[in-house]
Amino acid sequence: MRISLRPVETVFYDLFTTAANHLVAGADLLASILDDDADRVAVSEAMREAEHAADETTHEIVRRVNSTFVTPFDREDIYALASALDDVMDFMEETVDTIVLYKVDELPAQFAEQVHILQRATRLTAEAMPRLRSMKDLDEYWIEINRLENEGDRNHRRILAELFSGSYKTLQVLKLKDVVESVEQAIDALETVANIVEQIAVKES
Amino acid sequence: MRISLRPVETVFYDLFTTAANHLVAGADLLASILDDDADRVAVSEAMREAEHAADETTHEIVRRVNSTFVTPFDREDIYALASALDDVMDFMEETVDTIVLYKVDELPAQFAEQVHILQRATRLTAEAMPRLRSMKDLDEYWIEINRLENEGDRNHRRILAELFSGSYKTLQVLKLKDVVESVEQAIDALETVANIVEQIAVKES
Amino acid sequence: MRISLRPVETVFYDLFTTAANHLVAGADLLASILDDDADRVAVSEAMREAEHAADETTHEIVRRVNSTFVTPFDREDIYALASALDDVMDFMEETVDTIVLYKVDELPAQFAEQVHILQRATRLTAEAMPRLRSMKDLDEYWIEINRLENEGDRNHRRILAELFSGSYKTLQVLKLKDVVESVEQAIDALETVANIVEQIAVKES
Repeated sequence: MRISLRPVETVFYDLFTTAANHLVAGADLLASILDDDADRVAVSEAMREAEHAADETTHEIVRRVNSTFVTPFDREDIYALASALDDVMDFMEETVDTIVLYKVDELPAQFAEQVHILQRATRLTAEAMPRLRSMKDLDEYWIEINRLENEGDRNHRRILAELFSGSYKTLQVLKLKDVVESVEQAIDALETVANIVEQIAVKES
Repeated sequence: MRISLRPVETVFYDLFTTAANHLVAGADLLASILDDDADRVAVSEAMREAEHAADETTHEIVRRVNSTFVTPFDREDIYALASALDDVMDFMEETVDTIVLYKVDELPAQFAEQVHILQRATRLTAEAMPRLRSMKDLDEYWIEINRLENEGDRNHRRILAELFSGSYKTLQVLKLKDVVESVEQAIDALETVANIVEQIAVKES
Repeated sequence: MRISLRPVETVFYDLFTTAANHLVAGADLLASILDDDADRVAVSEAMREAEHAADETTHEIVRRVNSTFVTPFDREDIYALASALDDVMDFMEETVDTIVLYKVDELPAQFAEQVHILQRATRLTAEAMPRLRSMKDLDEYWIEINRLENEGDRNHRRILAELFSGSYKTLQVLKLKDVVESVEQAIDALETVANIVEQIAVKES
């Protein structure tokens, strides 16, 4: 395995930024499937490609961790951050996939708001990754992610109450519950990413 | 960050005891919602406060781990134990929340027994935490938790068989399954706590 | 606790092989319940015994890790591998249990194919475990597991699309979804095992 000649720090920060940018792309794809005239099969295929690209980045980070003598922060933390970023993509891909597989035709009104929260949280994450280098100005990132996660949580509960209100057919409840839960898991996974970044920052400070 | 002047050991044992006491309070709140004349909104709010209090304790433990030079046992084990205790509260809060959100009106008869197992397991956990200091008399704790978890597991399976017996409406099955599964997860999480305590005790012995 | 006089390496490789062989037995039991004339109660009991035997092996590995001075690879990796193998068994036992508890009478046609993938993956895992000793010829194992997991994933999605196609009663969808998801989780857990083996091999190489 080739040992990189570039400073290791740069490589890792760049890779984390790449990983987070895949999430921005994934959240935008997920949002696009909500359009009435969306080509669901095309979006679903684009999502699968985005997920493969994200996988590549995750594997590249793991390979680098295993072949680099000096890492910018603890190996376990690098591995945990890479996995957490990867989990976000998996939940987003699952959401798109579920919508297509279950042939979901109508989503609860508040679902678009959840996807919007997800989009904002992925953008904040992508903007924060390069700041891992200086470990500066990261507080505002994780505070805002926590705020978004709380907002998403309240919204999620409203959607569940609506689903179980009796105005949906039971098979429809079963379908929609899977869709809204996978978006909620994607938002939670972005909070996990922020918690890991906070842990790293506290250790390094 | 302030470095504590009290002996670190005392601080951690006290914090773990506080965390486990939050669980006792949470399990009692969950039990109280089963009363026919319970004020569900009030219980749900009290539960949310209990969960916030538990979060505070978890964060305090994590802060201490990160700012203390000498910890009474491995940092990873302290972190794992704090997370596992926190998970129990999250599952209990989810249970109460699901009952309120889904407007669940009738629970299977054996459900009260599950909540009773949960209450007993939280009390045993709270009584065991101060014994982490001497690492003595912990065997009986984890043996009894394992026994309770097995009892809870058998009871859980009986409830599921009842739910799918055909005597419930499908939407009701969907609602009740979420409720009983979150209690089962809370009991499992208490077994995870006991497993971590066992691991710590084996290492330190 | 007795410190083993046999070379530690041999003990761990043997125990991992034993653990994987329990999985082969479990997958075969799961396959046997699909026969029209299967004695479901008997299979369910045999499965529970297989799960207990697997638990014993897991505990033995954990005890050895905690009482051995020199381990053939990192303690965390031994622990992670033992847990991951144990998870596979838990998902297989859950599958059998769900079939019995919910009195599932007819499974989707493609379900047998999923169980067949699971059987092949457990066999590959059992054959790979003794090769941990030399760390040789492991690539083909994890490449093939990844291929099987992808095949299982595609098959799983086809089954879900079939379940939600409208040709099943909703209560039936709820039952079958739990069954097929637990098999999918068992296959995923075998991929996690392969990923951990890959990680260990990369570190040791």
